Amino acid sequence: MIQTPYLLFLGDAPDQLSAKVAQGIKDWRPDNAVGQLRMEGCKADVGLEDMTLAQAKAAGAKTLVIGVANRGGYISQAWKDVLIAALEMGYDLASGLHNLLSEEEDLVKAAAQHKQALHDVRIPTVEYPIASGVKRTGKRVLAVGTDCSVGKMYTALALDQAMRARGMKSTFRATGQTGILITGEGVPLDAVVADFMAGSIEHLTPDNEPDHWDVIEGQGSLFHVSYSGVTMALVHGGQPDALIICHEPTRPHMRGLPDYKVPRMEDIRDVALTLARVANPDCKVVGIAVNTQHMSEDEAQAYLTKVESEMGLPAVDPFRHGAERLAEALAEL
Amino acid sequence: MIQTPYLLFLGDAPDQLSAKVAQGIKDWRPDNAVGQLRMEGCKADVGLEDMTLAQAKAAGAKTLVIGVANRGGYISQAWKDVLIAALEMGYDLASGLHNLLSEEEDLVKAAAQHKQALHDVRIPTVEYPIASGVKRTGKRVLAVGTDCSVGKMYTALALDQAMRARGMKSTFRATGQTGILITGEGVPLDAVVADFMAGSIEHLTPDNEPDHWDVIEGQGSLFHVSYSGVTMALVHGGQPDALIICHEPTRPHMRGLPDYKVPRMEDIRDVALTLARVANPDCKVVGIAVNTQHMSEDEAQAYLTKVESEMGLPAVDPFRHGAERLAEALAEL
Repeated sequence: MIQTPYLLFLGDAPDQLSAKVAQGIKDWRPDNAVGQLRMEGCKADVGLEDMTLAQAKAAGAKTLVIGVANRGGYISQAWKDVLIAALEMGYDLASGLHNLLSEEEDLVKAAAQHKQALHDVRIPTVEYPIASGVKRTGKRVLAVGTDCSVGKMYTALALDQAMRARGMKSTFRATGQTGILITGEGVPLDAVVADFMAGSIEHLTPDNEPDHWDVIEGQGSLFHVSYSGVTMALVHGGQPDALIICHEPTRPHMRGLPDYKVPRMEDIRDVALTLARVANPDCKVVGIAVNTQHMSEDEAQAYLTKVESEMGLPAVDPFRHGAERLAEALAEL
Repeated sequence: MIQTPYLLFLGDAPDQLSAKVAQGIKDWRPDNAVGQLRMEGCKADVGLEDMTLAQAKAAGAKTLVIGVANRGGYISQAWKDVLIAALEMGYDLASGLHNLLSEEEDLVKAAAQHKQALHDVRIPTVEYPIASGVKRTGKRVLAVGTDCSVGKMYTALALDQAMRARGMKSTFRATGQTGILITGEGVPLDAVVADFMAGSIEHLTPDNEPDHWDVIEGQGSLFHVSYSGVTMALVHGGQPDALIICHEPTRPHMRGLPDYKVPRMEDIRDVALTLARVANPDCKVVGIAVNTQHMSEDEAQAYLTKVESEMGLPAVDPFRHGAERLAEALAEL
C-alpha cells in the first residue's frame, strides 16, 4: 500500500495527455494529493497548487508519485535529481512506468540510505494464491468491455463515486497501474503469473459486509485475443454479482488488431454471463456504459436511447452524463 | 530446447506413480531416452535398460532428465551427488520440479564449471511477445476440457501419434512441464506472465505448411475458475481450426473445487466454439475424448455410444481404444 497524501510529479511533461495518471488522481482522489511538482518546460497542469518538495512535505505529503509518462525509454538525469532529493527529504516514490525505479541503481541506493520505499506498481509484490473459488460475502460488480480501452476504469471509478453519493457502501478495486496509483493499492493483473491471476482477484476482493460492493476495474475483453485470458481471470476470480458492459461504438476494429471486428454488445453479454455464472449463478448484466467521446451530444443521446431499447438495460455515458443510473440499477438488485 | 537423447533419472522413487514424467517419455518418445538410472531403493521401473552415467554417455545420452517427483520439498544430497557427477561427465540437466535446479548453488557452480546447461522447464526462458492475432498458415487442433486433469495431454499425444501413423504432418505442442520434458521443448504456460500468455502460444505454433497440424496440449478448463484464464489464452493464442472436447464422466465435482459441478460437454462446446471463432471463424468441434478409467469396458462402451449419438461426433477413449477416429475426423476436415 502506497502512503498518502501524494505530491504529483509532472516533470517536463510534453503535453497534457502525458500526465493522465496525475489527472486521474486529481479527478478521482483529490484528497490523495496536496499539490503538483512541475519542472522547467512542463506543458501539463492538472490544476493543483504548484509546490516544491519542501512545501509539499510541510503540507503532509508522504509519497512523490510519478504522474507523467517518461520519454525515450529511460528515466532522465533531470528527473533523477528531483527523485533523489525527494528520497533525501523523506518521501517514498511511486511509479507505474515500464522503466522500474527498482532497476535504477542510484535510486535504489538513495532509497536504502534514507530508508524510503520505491513502489513500482507494474510489479506484483504479493505472492498471490491459486484461486479457491469459495463463495465470498459482500457484493461485486465488474466492468466488461467489448474491446480494450473503452472506458472500463473510468466507468468503475464513476460508478463507485455515484454509489457513495447515494450512501451505498462501495470500494473501487484497481487492477491496472493507473488505478493502483489513484487509490494507492490494487493488483497489477497484467503482470501476474498465469496460474495466480484469478487468485489475485480473489485476494483483491475479499469477504465483506453483505451490502458492500466492490467495483472491480475491468481489463481487456473476452473477445480481444491478446488479453482475453486476463479478462477471464477477472470474470472468475471476481465472482461478480453484476456486470456492466462497456462499449465504444465508433471503433473500426479491435484495438491493435486490424483484422478483428468489435463484437456486438449482445455477444459479450451472452459469453460473459455464461462464464460469470460458473462462479456466481445469480450474476446479472445490469447496465451499459457507452464511451461517446467521438459523437456529438445529439448522436450520443440517439445512440444511448437505441441501445437502451435494444438491450433492455440502462445505457449511459458515465463521462458525459454520470453513472447515477448504473448505481441505481445496482441498488435495485 | 533440451538436447536429446536423455538418460532418465528415477532416483529413489517411492513408487511407480512418482515416475510419471519418465513413463511419459518412455511411452511417447522412446527414441528420446537411451536408458534409466535408478538409485538404491528405487521402486519405479519404466522398462528401459538400467544404465550408469558412463554407460548412457557411451550410448549417446546428452541430458539427464529428472523423471521422478522429489520428496520433502527439497533436492536431497543423494540426488545431488548423482546430478553433479552427471554435470562433471558432460551431461546437461533437465527438470520440471518446483524446486529449481538453478536455485541450488552447488548445481549452478558445477554446471558453470563444466559448461553444461540446467533446464528448469517450469520457468519460461523466452521473452514472449504480446499476441498479434495475425492469421497463421497451417492447421491447429486444441484439446479443451470440461475440467482439469481429464486427459488432455494424453489425448493430444495419442492424436499426434495416430495422425503420423496415417501419414499426416503433425507436431505435438507442449504447454506444460511433463509435455515439455517428453518432447524437449514447449511453453510452460502456467508460469507465463498474464499479458504474454496468448503471445506465447502464437510463438509455440508458428506459420507452417498448409497441411501441417499443430496438436496443442490443453490446460485447465474454461469452466475451472482457478485456471480458466490460462485456457482462454490457448483458445485465442492457438487460433484452433479444430477442438477436441475432453471429459471424465465420473467426477463428483471440479478438481479442487468441491462447490463446482463439472459442466456438460454441450456447455464447453458452445462457449469454447464461440470464443475460438473470434480468432478463427472456421473452427469446428470434431470429436470427444472420454477418460473412462473409472468405468468397466462395458460401461465405457455404453457411455461412448451414448455420447456419440447425443453429440453427433466421434467419441473415443484414446487410452483404451486409440485416437484413430479423432485423427480421421481431422483428416476429413
